[in-house]
Parts: sequence; structure tokens; C-alpha cells
Amino acid sequence: MRLTGEMLIGASSVPASEGTMKALNPATGELIAPEFALGGPAEVDRAARLADEAFDSYNGTGIEERAAFLDLVADRLDGIRAELAERASLETGLPAAQFEAEAAKAAGQFRQFADVVRQGRFRHAAVDPAQPERQPRPRLDHRMQKIAIGPVAVFGASNFPISYSVAGGDTASALAAGCPVIVKAHNAHPGTSELMGRAIQGAVADSGLHEGVFSFVRGAGNEIGEALVDHPLIKAVTFTGSEAGGMALYRRAQLRPDPIPVFAEMTSVNPTFVLPAALAARGGEIGDGFAERMLVNVGQACLKPAVLLAVDGPGYAAMREAAAARVSAMGARTMLTPGIHDAYERGARRLRDSGAAAVAEGPEPEGAWEGRTRLLEVDGDRFLADPSLAEEVFGPAALLVRLSGPEQLLEVARSFRGQLSATMHLDEEDHAHAVRLLPVLERRTGRIVVNAFAHPQEVGHATIHGGPFPATTDSRFTSVGMTAIDRFLRPVTYQGFPDALLPEALAAGNPLGLWRLVDGHVTRD
Amino acid sequence: MRLTGEMLIGASSVPASEGTMKALNPATGELIAPEFALGGPAEVDRAARLADEAFDSYNGTGIEERAAFLDLVADRLDGIRAELAERASLETGLPAAQFEAEAAKAAGQFRQFADVVRQGRFRHAAVDPAQPERQPRPRLDHRMQKIAIGPVAVFGASNFPISYSVAGGDTASALAAGCPVIVKAHNAHPGTSELMGRAIQGAVADSGLHEGVFSFVRGAGNEIGEALVDHPLIKAVTFTGSEAGGMALYRRAQLRPDPIPVFAEMTSVNPTFVLPAALAARGGEIGDGFAERMLVNVGQACLKPAVLLAVDGPGYAAMREAAAARVSAMGARTMLTPGIHDAYERGARRLRDSGAAAVAEGPEPEGAWEGRTRLLEVDGDRFLADPSLAEEVFGPAALLVRLSGPEQLLEVARSFRGQLSATMHLDEEDHAHAVRLLPVLERRTGRIVVNAFAHPQEVGHATIHGGPFPATTDSRFTSVGMTAIDRFLRPVTYQGFPDALLPEALAAGNPLGLWRLVDGHVTRD
Repeated sequence: MRLTGEMLIGASSVPASEGTMKALNPATGELIAPEFALGGPAEVDRAARLADEAFDSYNGTGIEERAAFLDLVADRLDGIRAELAERASLETGLPAAQFEAEAAKAAGQFRQFADVVRQGRFRHAAVDPAQPERQPRPRLDHRMQKIAIGPVAVFGASNFPISYSVAGGDTASALAAGCPVIVKAHNAHPGTSELMGRAIQGAVADSGLHEGVFSFVRGAGNEIGEALVDHPLIKAVTFTGSEAGGMALYRRAQLRPDPIPVFAEMTSVNPTFVLPAALAARGGEIGDGFAERMLVNVGQACLKPAVLLAVDGPGYAAMREAAAARVSAMGARTMLTPGIHDAYERGARRLRDSGAAAVAEGPEPEGAWEGRTRLLEVDGDRFLADPSLAEEVFGPAALLVRLSGPEQLLEVARSFRGQLSATMHLDEEDHAHAVRLLPVLERRTGRIVVNAFAHPQEVGHATIHGGPFPATTDSRFTSVGMTAIDRFLRPVTYQGFPDALLPEALAAGNPLGLWRLVDGHVTRD
Repeated sequence: MRLTGEMLIGASSVPASEGTMKALNPATGELIAPEFALGGPAEVDRAARLADEAFDSYNGTGIEERAAFLDLVADRLDGIRAELAERASLETGLPAAQFEAEAAKAAGQFRQFADVVRQGRFRHAAVDPAQPERQPRPRLDHRMQKIAIGPVAVFGASNFPISYSVAGGDTASALAAGCPVIVKAHNAHPGTSELMGRAIQGAVADSGLHEGVFSFVRGAGNEIGEALVDHPLIKAVTFTGSEAGGMALYRRAQLRPDPIPVFAEMTSVNPTFVLPAALAARGGEIGDGFAERMLVNVGQACLKPAVLLAVDGPGYAAMREAAAARVSAMGARTMLTPGIHDAYERGARRLRDSGAAAVAEGPEPEGAWEGRTRLLEVDGDRFLADPSLAEEVFGPAALLVRLSGPEQLLEVARSFRGQLSATMHLDEEDHAHAVRLLPVLERRTGRIVVNAFAHPQEVGHATIHGGPFPATTDSRFTSVGMTAIDRFLRPVTYQGFPDALLPEALAAGNPLGLWRLVDGHVTRD
């Protein structure tokens, strides 16, 4: 597929209205062709109007029609997998092999959501049949299903240029819900984005859907994003990135005359608690495993385990040494963008300025935007005294927290803000500790992991990739996994409808064979 | 039960810290004993700390323990039904008989939520079992359930002093979800509120729950409400009332360092569309039924049908006349508060100033705060030209909109902001019209009613009492019905947990016998 650098608005390829940009290869510092078109509010308005026009027909698609479209997107992504991986590698400086896997995962998500659509449970269909004899007054027939919330704006992330980008889980789940999507791609990987955008655009056309079901815009600065969040026809926003970026969009959306949901997945240090028996039994193994996962993707992952906590005691030194050895041995690697590299250096300095001591460092970087690996350490008192030590440093650094005892472990656990995940390493003798720690973690995270590391992410029915603020702006939902679709649905009751006018999912005789709640009972009848 | 006028914070009865107030009987203008204690931020802080302390144990209650508590609240409410009804009648000027029914409904809601808790579906339990053989990498065991979001602040409404107040659906659903609740009662019915508060407080004590599960505060002005919304330990807010009031709380909550959900149910004119064949066949009957429902509770209901729309043609005159006759015949009745009465008069003037012509008026009021019934009329062009005509006038007034044709009916339907409900009166010959109107209504309302009126409200599994902004601040949820519990739940994934540490709902062998999603399949195994 030839990259033209255009934006994609409905079926059209759209040239620049606000200048152009080139992609950067952060490994070489070279700018890469072609020129990518930049747009602004005019392109957003055109895309939003098309999305609005597409809404009724796309929200009204039958289950099989919508599922087949999602499968076709998956096929199209599979068809360009090598090309995608190669371009993503060029635009990130990371190896192409990992992007082959990421592209396969992205296609897989579309197929999984196609299955979710086919199963129809996303409708949450409920039927309270008429009870003409009920006292003191009869009950009329009530039926409920969920429908799409409206056109959705998706802001792609920098760190996973395929699976959290144009063809990522946000786009897949919003399309599965019946929402037209407008993607504002991250400028760190404009070519990768265009390839995915053309794949989806092609699938829309070949499925005979309204062209407004998908658009893809690009812009410099904040203006285009603000135009998306402000547009009255946009009804929900997703974002993956920094707390500052996410909160800017969130606050702006809440100041609209009609506030809309913003699902921003922002920041998490994914604390890892090592309980005493596990520490004594296998501190070294845990320290090594922790450091290995911390360094994946040059530490640029939302699920990077960034804080390792244990009560000082048997196994602590072994854990510390193993983590230090792994960190020292790992060479510096190119980070995603110059800006991310600079923020990483500032963050690492901040940890030291807050009293964290250097335990280990990797070799001095050679390239300009390479991130040097780092392990720091602090004691529990200091950690509690300075909340900035619990803030994310995006990149290959981690903090070891040496605790004075089990009570301090609980106190430190309570001090964390909301997290995407938390981990407990434990043995059976640790269960009494774990039982006390568990409710503290439940209130603060969307996922609790035992004896493993949170990363990499599953995409399943029981997957939650979310959590209390500031991990996300809405702890009631997930951005990854099959229930991510729930973000884009809202319920409607149909009361006293004649059969001929009822939506398919609520029709008499349950022609789709859905699981429904009938008079409060789960049934497929 | 003797009213002391105190606030209830946990197990304590708390005297005034910021002065006292008396209740007003709006029918007589008399102030009623006792003196009611007013509090402020200090009482909020005390209640919030207790609620936070109660959280872990209450969120951790077993299904039967929590359900039994909710049943006990229902029993306590039943035990004071006559007393409640009498006091509510005194504080509103409305007949005691209707409050007997409202109290029965409130108790019924607690029993329904007890059943929801017993069924355990609110956990949304999902299990993705380990797949050690999966390629390219094994899947670890993932299990997901929903838990309580945290302490909830409930702001009671003025218009249903029992079922949307201290013991209303917001309190019942939040307690069912496992959230401690702090109610800020409406000052229009302080005695009714105290009676319900003491019933719940007693049930907490008799159930052996932490006292912080329920508190009840009262204050003058906005300060106490702002303190609740601002308090860092409060994790969600519910509100029923005006758009201005709801949006003030919403915007404030979004400006917190950690924004929290605010479920404000605010404003709706519940448009009623009469399609041509139904109009011709039974225009008179529809006009009469519309006016009858419009006048219920002196027009002070969120589901009051306030706008009646039809294309001019056969049956229109009959509909208009029947509605006018009902409105003319209904005498003026006392409104809930002097403030609501004055706002009603201003609203009715606004409709006239915007070009709506008076069609009918009831007899001149005798009491100071009685609302005079009114029917006004406007044509479709005028209605489209002035959006203020589509804004709610809380009280016994309605607007008839005479449309020029089917296209104008659709155009007018598209002009509405979000609504709690919309109604279509239709016959079989109207189905072609209805099919075009239906998607327009689906995008704008939470409930679509055919050939009936939206009011009164069911409380069922398929009930949605919600809708797009400004009907509510979050179209994805309902404030009435069994799924109201979903507002107060958030998902947590448990990955790789040993059986001994898994929550009951996710345990191996499904000891609670819940419906769960296992590997994407609905099962009770």
C-alpha cells in the first residue's frame, strides 16, 4: 500500500489544510517520507458530520452484518501485517518482529469483538412482560436493550503504534458497539496510522456501510484534538497517554454545554508487593522477573511494574541484587520520541532529588534519544513522606521500596493513588498478610495479579485494563478486553411496543437466540 | 417515632452546628415543629470518615447478609408507613393517601434490591480459565467481578419526598452495591426525611453493620452540598432536581483533583407524538389522557408529559379540545414549595412571551402557592425557531405543538435535547411513520412508550429512567430500576489467584451458584 500522507474522511483522501509534517526515525534521527497532511477544525467538522449521518444506519446494522465488517477489518489488517510492522519499526526504532505480533493482536481484537457482536450479549436485553392482572395496577410490557452512544473520537497512544492506535481496542470496541469512529492518530507514527486507516476505510467500503463510519485526521498541536472534544456531534472520547494530556481533554469535555464521557487511560506505577514467605523463598527470582518486565519496550508500557515493595528481611538482598544485575546488564535503547526521552531523564532526576538512591544503572547511552536503565531505592518512611516518589516515570527506571514491617506495607499500599494493576508475590504462609492487603488493593486498582507480572495484557472477557483515578478517568470501565464495548453503549426501554416495531434483540420469541433477562431470570427462551 | 430534628451520623444523633430550621406546610403557610438541626462541612467530614471506615467491611458483606439488611430496611419502612405518609402530607400539602403508596413503593424497592443482591448477577462475574497450552504464550487464569465504587452522597429530590429521598432508589441501589451512603435530604420535607433516616439507621444497627454505612445530614444553602461533593472520601454523587442544581454539582465534582461520577437526573419534557391514524381514530381520548397525566402531582413529576405534538389534520381539534377541557376543569392546587410555585409562574410567562397562545386555564388559585393549570399552543415553525419552548416548566402546564406535516414532525423531534422518555401514539397504519421516528427518539431518550403515558414509573429489570443530557448527566445509566445498581460498581480482575484468596463470586466450583461468563459463555456451572 502506497502512503500518500493524506487524511481519510469518510471515503475521501483529504490533502493538507494546515501544513505538513514528516515522520521521525528516533533511532537514526532521520525524517522519513512522505509529507503527511495536517488538518484542523474544518476536517474535524467534516468527519463529525459524516459520522453523525452514518449513525442511524450503522447503529441499526444487524448482528451478522456488523460482525462481518469487523472480521473484514481483521482480514485487511492481516493482509498488511508485514508492511505495518516494517513501517512501525521505522517510526519507533523498535524491532519489526514485535510489531508483527502487535499487528496480529490488533487483528485478533477485531475478530474477538466480531464474536462479541454475534453473541449479542452486549445488548443486555431484558424483558419485563406485561402483567395485566397485577395489583394495585397492571404492569405494561417493558423491554430494554443497549444501543450505541453516538460518534466516538479516538486519540491514539504513542507507545503501541498498532494495538493502541488507529486499529486498536478503542476503535474496535466502539465500532462493535455501533458507533462511528473518528481517529486522531499520534504524530509519532503517522505512516503506520495511515496504513491502518486505509485498511479500515477499505473494509467500510467493501461492507457497503455509510462512509461516515470511519474517518482519520491528523494535526499539529492541540487545536485538532480540542476541535474533536468540543464538537457537538461527538458523544464520547477515548485517550491513552499522559495524565496531563488526558486531563486536558477530560476537563475540556466536561466544560461543554453537554458534557460527554472521556475514557482516558493515563498513568500507573503498577506496584508489586512481595510478601515475606515468597521473598524468603525466591527473592532473587522475583527481582529478576520484575526487572525483566520493567524493561520491556524500554519501559514505555502502561503496565510497566515501576515500584517493587517488600519488608526488609530474608530474601530482600537477593531480590535487590537480582533486579540490579538485570538493570545493569541491559543496554540503553532508543525511546519512542525525543520528547519522551527528555521527560524520562527529568523523571529519573526527580526520583533522585526526592531522596531515592541509585542502586544500579545500565551502560551509558550512545544514541541521542536512548534511555539508560536505572534502579533506585528508598525506604518506606521517605516514600510516605514524598508522594512524588509514587508518580510514574515513563521509561526504563524502577524504584525499590524497603519497608520496615507489615504495618508499613499496608500504610504504603493505602498511600497509592489509583492504579491499572497491582501485584502480590506470595506463598501459602503469606495468605494472612494477603487477606489484609487485598481490600486495600481492590479499592485502588483494576487488576490484582498473584505471582506473575501484569504485563503483557490479555484481551479476554475477564480482562480489566482500568482503575480508579488517575489510572483512568472512569473506574467503571475498561479500555482493553471484551467489556470495553460497554463504554459506548447506553440503555433504552421500549414500553408497550407492538412486535412489528421492536428491535431484533427484544422481539417476541427471541429470534436471535440471545441470553436475555426475562422477568429477572437469565434465559435463552 | 418522635422527631428530634437531629442529624444522624453513623449511630449518633447530632445536634445543630449551624442553626436550625422549621418545616413549612405549603397548604397553610404554617411552620411545623420541631426545630431541625442544620450542619455543614464538619458534619460532612465526620460522616465521610465513618463511611470510609465502613467501606471494606460493608463491601465485603456476603450476599445473604447484605440482602437481609436491605429487607430489614424495607420492614422498618413498612412499620412507619402511616407516620411517614402523615408527615409527608403535612410537609407538602398533598394527600396522605398518595404517600402511603409512595412509602410502600420505597419499601418494595429495598426488597427488590435485596433480590438483586441474592441473585448475584450484579457482580458480573467472568472467568477466563488458564490455558497453559495456548500458543504463542499460555493464558493465565483471569477472573473478574464488580465491587462497590466507594462512599456515595445522595441528594434527595423535592417532589417525591419518600421514593426519591432518604429511602429512595438512589440509597437502595447504592447500599445494594455495597456502598456506604450519606444522604443530604431536601429541606422541603425534613421530618419525613428524619423518619426514614432513623429507619435505616436502626436497620444498620440491628444488622450488626459498621455504623458508617449510613448517615444523614441537613444544611442551609449550598455549603453542605458542596462539602459533600468536594470531600475526597466521597466517590460518587446522585442528585434529582433542576438542571441548574444538577449541573452545579456536576461541574464542581469534575473540578476535583480526582473527578467523580455525578448521576444527576435533571430535566425532561417527555414529548408525546401523536401519529396521524391514531390522531384520527382517538384524538379526543389521547388529549384527555395526556392532560390527566400531565396534571398528576400538580405537574411536579420528572415524567410529566409536557409537550403534545401532532400534525394538523383529522382528530387534531378533538385532541386539543379534550386536553383543554381537562385542564380547564382542574382546580389550582398547592405546589411543593413557594420557590417552585414562583418558578412555575415565571415559566408559564416565558412560554407566553415566546409566542405560545393560551388554549385553556383552570380556575384562578385561592391559596398563595397554588399552581393554576394551563394549556398553551404553538405551531411547528415557532417551536423550531425558539428552543426555549422545549424547556421544562415544572408544574401543571403543557404545550401543544401543531405541526405542518410529517417532515416537520421529524424535524421537531430532532430538535429536542435529551429526554427521560418520549411517547408515540400510533395505530398499525402509522408504522411507516413510526419506523422513521424511532431512531430519532432512540438517540434522544432513555425510554420510548407506545400508546400509554410514561408516568407512573415501573421499577423493574427493564426499567430505564435516564437519558441523554440534559435529562441526566450520564446516559449510560438509570436512576430507577434494578440496573440502577450498576452506577455504583466498578470491575476488578483477579489474575492467578489461589482458590483460598478468591472472592466468593469467583471461587472455583461456583459455590454461590451464580450465572457467570466462563470463557465467554453464559453458564451456572
